[in-house]
Amino acid sequence: MIINPENIPQRTTSTYPEEFKQRVAGRIKQAVGNAALIKNFGVNLVKLAPGSCSALRHWHSKQDEFIYVVEGEITLITNAGEQILTPGMMAGFPAGKADGHHLINKSSQVVIYLEVGDRTPNDEVDYPDDDLIASSSENGWIFSHKDGSEY
Amino acid sequence: MIINPENIPQRTTSTYPEEFKQRVAGRIKQAVGNAALIKNFGVNLVKLAPGSCSALRHWHSKQDEFIYVVEGEITLITNAGEQILTPGMMAGFPAGKADGHHLINKSSQVVIYLEVGDRTPNDEVDYPDDDLIASSSENGWIFSHKDGSEY
Repeated sequence: MIINPENIPQRTTSTYPEEFKQRVAGRIKQAVGNAALIKNFGVNLVKLAPGSCSALRHWHSKQDEFIYVVEGEITLITNAGEQILTPGMMAGFPAGKADGHHLINKSSQVVIYLEVGDRTPNDEVDYPDDDLIASSSENGWIFSHKDGSEY
Repeated sequence: MIINPENIPQRTTSTYPEEFKQRVAGRIKQAVGNAALIKNFGVNLVKLAPGSCSALRHWHSKQDEFIYVVEGEITLITNAGEQILTPGMMAGFPAGKADGHHLINKSSQVVIYLEVGDRTPNDEVDYPDDDLIASSSENGWIFSHKDGSEY
């Protein structure tokens, strides 16, 4: 199944609780892996407008993540601070490593990157900077406060 | 873990039985996913010299595959015949779909692409054009003739 990204729907919505949605405004995702009928892992082509970010800073308990920078200059934030990634550079975020990460477009140009993540069940996500945790379910992510109460 | 491909070892060898190794001469793989400590799926940055190909034409019983074309023009061969992929185009090869695929560089320039595959155990690979099958094991691929006899 060949994928030309021009033909893939662009999603700008987020499944975060309402109070966090604005944080990823300016993010466009295209589910190119799903479009190619791949099931064991997800692949998204992501565009970040200047000032936008990939996600809230987070790490996964069971699912690995990997990104490849296609275009533009992006700032990776981890416990180590800020690092700049340029086209052709990549980064991996191994499952279970308690080091929250996200990508911020601090430049004045659109950034494009490819993100890959597997779909290991019973995954949990911690958001170290926010009162938020998530757990995977068959119907998508279930978000809650850190004390377990619902949003 | 940030990956700059300039720092990742280049592998030109193949695990195919001896009589097939020449078919992928001119192929260079860099295991960028392993370098990033990702375990649930593999990511390789692959360079194909003019005339070289990605693999023998094959399909997997359980593992999905996905590619993203970074540079150059590559020819995808499937049961549908030949299709040309250009930079920014992608293709997915869903597990269990009995349609062998491989990529051939029929151009005069080096082709670069990213390949992703998961690591679902007990995978089997069929090579429709060759007297070859493979099965996954903890120690890598085990190749045999189609009648089950060893190489």
